Amino acid sequence: MTTLASMNGIELTKVGTDEIEIPTHWYNIVADLPTPPAPGLHPGTGEPLQPQDLAPLFAMGLIEQEASTERWIEIPQPVRDVYALWRPSPLFRALRLEKALGTTAKIYYKYEGVSPVGSHKPNSSVPQAYYTKLAGRTRVTTETGAGQWGAALAFAAETFGLTCDVWQVRSSYESKPYRHAQMEVFGASVVASPSELTKVGRELRERFPDTSGSLGMAISEAVEEAAADPNASYSLGSVLNHVLLHQSVIGQEVLQQLAVFEEPQIDYLFACAGGGSNLGGIALPILRENLDGRQNVKIVACEPMAAPSLTQGEFRYDFGDTAGMTPMLKMYTLGKDFVPDPVHAGGLRYHGMAPLISHCYHEGLISAIAVGQLEAFEAGVLFARAEGIIPASESNHAIAGALRQARAATESGASPVIVIGVSGNGLLDLPAYTEYLSGNMSDG
Amino acid sequence: MTTLASMNGIELTKVGTDEIEIPTHWYNIVADLPTPPAPGLHPGTGEPLQPQDLAPLFAMGLIEQEASTERWIEIPQPVRDVYALWRPSPLFRALRLEKALGTTAKIYYKYEGVSPVGSHKPNSSVPQAYYTKLAGRTRVTTETGAGQWGAALAFAAETFGLTCDVWQVRSSYESKPYRHAQMEVFGASVVASPSELTKVGRELRERFPDTSGSLGMAISEAVEEAAADPNASYSLGSVLNHVLLHQSVIGQEVLQQLAVFEEPQIDYLFACAGGGSNLGGIALPILRENLDGRQNVKIVACEPMAAPSLTQGEFRYDFGDTAGMTPMLKMYTLGKDFVPDPVHAGGLRYHGMAPLISHCYHEGLISAIAVGQLEAFEAGVLFARAEGIIPASESNHAIAGALRQARAATESGASPVIVIGVSGNGLLDLPAYTEYLSGNMSDG
Repeated sequence: MTTLASMNGIELTKVGTDEIEIPTHWYNIVADLPTPPAPGLHPGTGEPLQPQDLAPLFAMGLIEQEASTERWIEIPQPVRDVYALWRPSPLFRALRLEKALGTTAKIYYKYEGVSPVGSHKPNSSVPQAYYTKLAGRTRVTTETGAGQWGAALAFAAETFGLTCDVWQVRSSYESKPYRHAQMEVFGASVVASPSELTKVGRELRERFPDTSGSLGMAISEAVEEAAADPNASYSLGSVLNHVLLHQSVIGQEVLQQLAVFEEPQIDYLFACAGGGSNLGGIALPILRENLDGRQNVKIVACEPMAAPSLTQGEFRYDFGDTAGMTPMLKMYTLGKDFVPDPVHAGGLRYHGMAPLISHCYHEGLISAIAVGQLEAFEAGVLFARAEGIIPASESNHAIAGALRQARAATESGASPVIVIGVSGNGLLDLPAYTEYLSGNMSDG
Repeated sequence: MTTLASMNGIELTKVGTDEIEIPTHWYNIVADLPTPPAPGLHPGTGEPLQPQDLAPLFAMGLIEQEASTERWIEIPQPVRDVYALWRPSPLFRALRLEKALGTTAKIYYKYEGVSPVGSHKPNSSVPQAYYTKLAGRTRVTTETGAGQWGAALAFAAETFGLTCDVWQVRSSYESKPYRHAQMEVFGASVVASPSELTKVGRELRERFPDTSGSLGMAISEAVEEAAADPNASYSLGSVLNHVLLHQSVIGQEVLQQLAVFEEPQIDYLFACAGGGSNLGGIALPILRENLDGRQNVKIVACEPMAAPSLTQGEFRYDFGDTAGMTPMLKMYTLGKDFVPDPVHAGGLRYHGMAPLISHCYHEGLISAIAVGQLEAFEAGVLFARAEGIIPASESNHAIAGALRQARAATESGASPVIVIGVSGNGLLDLPAYTEYLSGNMSDG
């Protein structure tokens, strides 16, 4: 175990809030990519999207960000003020995990579970609510899988005085009552999707009477509702460029925090990937290090076996939702009608992958692995017992990827620096842990 | 709204981890009390307790702390190393809550919900596990009500390589499956109390076949089990002097953090009180300010209507448990056979009150109010919607007390400085919030 510089007489295992700054700007990878990503296409005309095409759904501040090629976009002060409730989030050296593994690797983890709702999602819900308010709209609609995004938007909407309607994937709605309670505490209305409230929901229920729902279906419902109400904006918790942009605060902080640890080089970065917001947030500012020649980090997207869009999907234009109401995006996709098994990592159950992540993967700038549910939870329990933090089901996939690498390093006697993005805490995933510990969890 | 000094360009609303130090010593109020508290008595002889009387149950390091009259006791380095996972915990200026209330008061809150298990309890479970390990014992037993203490001890036991057996009050065991899942993730064995595993448990089940259990009963079981096993220690999450000692890190940090806020005087301090560990931890280092003449803080214990030991109990010797196996303690008590209604703030459902808190209350050094469940949850929802943090059911009692004071201040045009101890987060209490929001919660 390496001895680190001590702080307050305590071996340095955490770099927290006051030594580093909350970023003042979001980082936009588009400015630094060697080749430009393909544009989104209008679902009706098939032509490249224009800002006005998105105007019925999104506030103009967000549309500008979606299309921006500027490297740095200033974070508005009211957004930074809310970020300050939990940002900067801590970066830990996982000394106890290293000891439990007996590994020669050095492991760090960035922990987003300290946010008000327990995940990285408010990094984008807060600016989305802010720009919606700024545009004079009074309402946001959205979909949610496991509920992290819905809770994050409910919190942000409440903060800026907007009403919030959430369509939650039916399987999660029914199996996770704590999550919709959390949204309701923040004043949101939550319904199971597909619902009777929208035309598309009614059609989906007729076509698939026993469906457990999917993110694609819930997106269709929230989009239909927002498009029909001039006072409403639609909010998406992942996939789009502006969401990944907002999440870039994570990776920027990691770089600052590793500097405090006097750790100039990362060898491996593992982050879970569903729609791509968590991966993009932590990885793209670090990918810039590679593009600029300062570092040579191997970035590994950890996706679930149940929705392996990068490792088993096709790179082509597809819709973001099931009903085909959204723009067409060039992305790795399993097809818009793909309904993943209802695994516990509901936040990763998406048929596609963010176009920016898809582009980087296609260009060979990042790599990907698929992780089964059992391996993920085995890693999560080991992590919890060593570090004291119970990770979210989604985050367990990243931890599992990191453990593979740490064990390989130990075998070869190498000492790589491994960074894990722990996207949230697992307090509302505890029944999944019970299922795993009792031996009743299926692999997925 | 007062304008504060800004930090990183952000209005200062939080003082977190790196500007202040994790305390190096625990603070022992006994050294500064004008009159000494009454000693504990041996349950058999009725004579004042001697250290050897406690040796079968507790490690000697803890027994010495229980009887200590030293003002400062050094925190062992391995304990501070674990504290560093989440300490210092943040102190927030509740600007959004002040705005929501339209109050002239200035409100701060100390937030212990950032710990690995989401409450203040690990402040004592970690040193208790450490000293138990140091004494060469391999196992800890304990009771838990809502589950915060059990989860905290399970985490600490895992950290120091001890096995951990938890008796959880039956009503909580049955209504809070997430909590025992949390303990099990950390490797603990959990049973509902009263159980068939102990003699006293079997007797209680025979006498009270339909009992929902109580902390007093669960203590009896955990004590019986530890006393019969020379390798085991019993751990208590509240009441005793050494527990309040460990919790003193909270109040010490508050004083450091208010200094960063350039706030030299507190007018009111509100903290929830069940057994007294949270109240003692935040209040006793601040009471020292009063005793030394530096401040004149009104300290208000907020207890639940369902277990109002300070406001409605008697100040006399009583047992800490139902079966009468523990030492007799001079405390405010509702009687050892009192079984509180199964309200949601399970952590406050105790028949007695820590002797140190009882003594201070009897001497007029602190005051107390009782808060009903509905008022508590109304306050908790208001707090969550303003501050983004969903508080624990227990913490809601303190918030309710603070809101009473803030509203009174607004009416009189005063601007007192109010500090709230928010002892934990409410993520595992979400069903109680649902019950409240749906109008189905009874007062209690």
